Amino acid sequence: MNIERLRTPALILDKEAFERNIETMRSLLEGSTLSLRPHYKSHKCAEIARMQIASGAIGITCAKLSEAEDLVDAGIEDVLIANQVVEEPKISRLCQLAKDARITVCVDCAENIAALSRAAVAADATLYCLVEYDIGLQRCGVLTHSEVIELARAVDAADRLVFDGVQAYAGQLSHEVDSEKRRSETEARAKDLRALLAELKAAGLGARVLSGGSTGTSAIKAKEGLYTELQAGSYLFMDSTYGELDIPFENSLYILTTVLSVKDGLVVVDAGVKSCGVDQGMPRIYCDEAREISACEEHFQIFEPKKQYKVGDKMLLIPAHCCSTVNLHDKIYMINKGRVVSRIAVSARGCSK
Amino acid sequence: MNIERLRTPALILDKEAFERNIETMRSLLEGSTLSLRPHYKSHKCAEIARMQIASGAIGITCAKLSEAEDLVDAGIEDVLIANQVVEEPKISRLCQLAKDARITVCVDCAENIAALSRAAVAADATLYCLVEYDIGLQRCGVLTHSEVIELARAVDAADRLVFDGVQAYAGQLSHEVDSEKRRSETEARAKDLRALLAELKAAGLGARVLSGGSTGTSAIKAKEGLYTELQAGSYLFMDSTYGELDIPFENSLYILTTVLSVKDGLVVVDAGVKSCGVDQGMPRIYCDEAREISACEEHFQIFEPKKQYKVGDKMLLIPAHCCSTVNLHDKIYMINKGRVVSRIAVSARGCSK
Repeated sequence: MNIERLRTPALILDKEAFERNIETMRSLLEGSTLSLRPHYKSHKCAEIARMQIASGAIGITCAKLSEAEDLVDAGIEDVLIANQVVEEPKISRLCQLAKDARITVCVDCAENIAALSRAAVAADATLYCLVEYDIGLQRCGVLTHSEVIELARAVDAADRLVFDGVQAYAGQLSHEVDSEKRRSETEARAKDLRALLAELKAAGLGARVLSGGSTGTSAIKAKEGLYTELQAGSYLFMDSTYGELDIPFENSLYILTTVLSVKDGLVVVDAGVKSCGVDQGMPRIYCDEAREISACEEHFQIFEPKKQYKVGDKMLLIPAHCCSTVNLHDKIYMINKGRVVSRIAVSARGCSK
Repeated sequence: MNIERLRTPALILDKEAFERNIETMRSLLEGSTLSLRPHYKSHKCAEIARMQIASGAIGITCAKLSEAEDLVDAGIEDVLIANQVVEEPKISRLCQLAKDARITVCVDCAENIAALSRAAVAADATLYCLVEYDIGLQRCGVLTHSEVIELARAVDAADRLVFDGVQAYAGQLSHEVDSEKRRSETEARAKDLRALLAELKAAGLGARVLSGGSTGTSAIKAKEGLYTELQAGSYLFMDSTYGELDIPFENSLYILTTVLSVKDGLVVVDAGVKSCGVDQGMPRIYCDEAREISACEEHFQIFEPKKQYKVGDKMLLIPAHCCSTVNLHDKIYMINKGRVVSRIAVSARGCSK
């Protein structure tokens, strides 16, 4: 099928650019200390997770238990939930998953460690734990070396839990446009992390894993020789926000829209907030520019685009945030040279629990 | 089930507040010129659409063809698509729907009217059309009386199309906090619309329907005696943005979250951009306040809340925008006195095509 015939808005993926991004990441990490454990949050497609495993990823990172359930259900055998799981019904389910796959979860408080251990014992399951260390994101994780060591010791002492290392994710640097600042800030954190790892080792708590990183810091982390696992996700698709950075990936994901209405200086298309994530701003127009873009639920209002459009014309948009955009769709159309070559189910769409 | 046991984030609906909102709208419109044709975009639940019809709505408004398909599939027999349908494959499907239900669609250009007519003839179906008049939203619709009359004449002359009236939606006024400005701006538009309707009548093109309005302007429109159909949607749920206005509806929709992590001055919960629409800003905390709230994909970072929280505590959030929030969920838990009393499927979640 020609993509012009797709009902819009449709999420489309350029097969060749997508495959080049996979190859670029493979060659970037070649010979480094880093293994790729790509983040599921960006694509949420079990089919793509399997492609990533087939091309060398050691496992998959995800944000939520419900995403881990989807991954294990699809045959992925090594899953990191890069967050805390604290509700009792979820912990119980987590331990069931851990009977079917190698499951790692993050911890940042002693009560949660105790609850995970009790549930793992009851389920006769083993859970792997990373202690989360907050290196400036101001989200989950503890703030001091002594707290990391204390929690690592608690995990190590807990029945059916394995202390496997540390998660340290500097998400606040991922989109830093100034590449020198991104590099120097990442290096400052690396120095602190080396000290932490040495202290853990001295305490008899060797960290096998140091997990973190993003698409924006992949190249820096590949060179620094510190982290063992890279959690990048967006490198597959890119978006207009990451497009501002000097990183070696290219845009492969677009929203195909149809022009609904045209009047003096204004073009209205049939995609909006409900089909394109706007949490990082407005999308860009592929091969065009506009004075301003506004968003409604089902429309973008495009003021003074440079090109001429008429009702029924197609327009390609580049989302500002690939992750929040994919979560709005049930399927991604993979295209090559203007034709649909496959359709990929967004199997974990909406899996926020 | 006690709501404390729900896996979070969970979208919950307070049954009593929801039912009071339905009754408030019924009494607001009693004796007015306005019939209620509530907008599907806010709830996207066929079950709630049936409740609205049962309590007096004359039909349902929706934004997209795929929402109309869901409504007709669920037995709703009178549907307005408050937008243009311009792609050939969609027009063909629209005409098939029109064989099963009374379907109305908006038009704002002559080529589209011709295409709709050709397809309706081919399908042996009748389509009802509203000419869209742009009264300041800067979205679809024509800008002048003469264009409205010209398009109405084209519809009237086209085979298998029925000119049924005008759509004029001043969405830019829906959230105007200054109630005097909201009233005076709405009245200024009413004056212009009365003149337009008179000109249409003089041209032999009587408009049976004048459709528009929103939750924010419902009370004004109920008094002005001009519009025949009210498209309000959010009145059922409200949200923190509409909560700023002096309108007679109350909040009934919340996101139940769990506290994942707590440290000095910071509480992190397990809902974020992927479970709470942030296109109109950050959510509010029910019965609490914070200095600042930031959003990640799966977390809100709540800085300096007034109350004390510990890991595992529940927190209720009031979304800033109910419509974009509901679209992120597959189900809504209806609760009464802290217990789940029913679960409603968001049957048209993701229906943006």
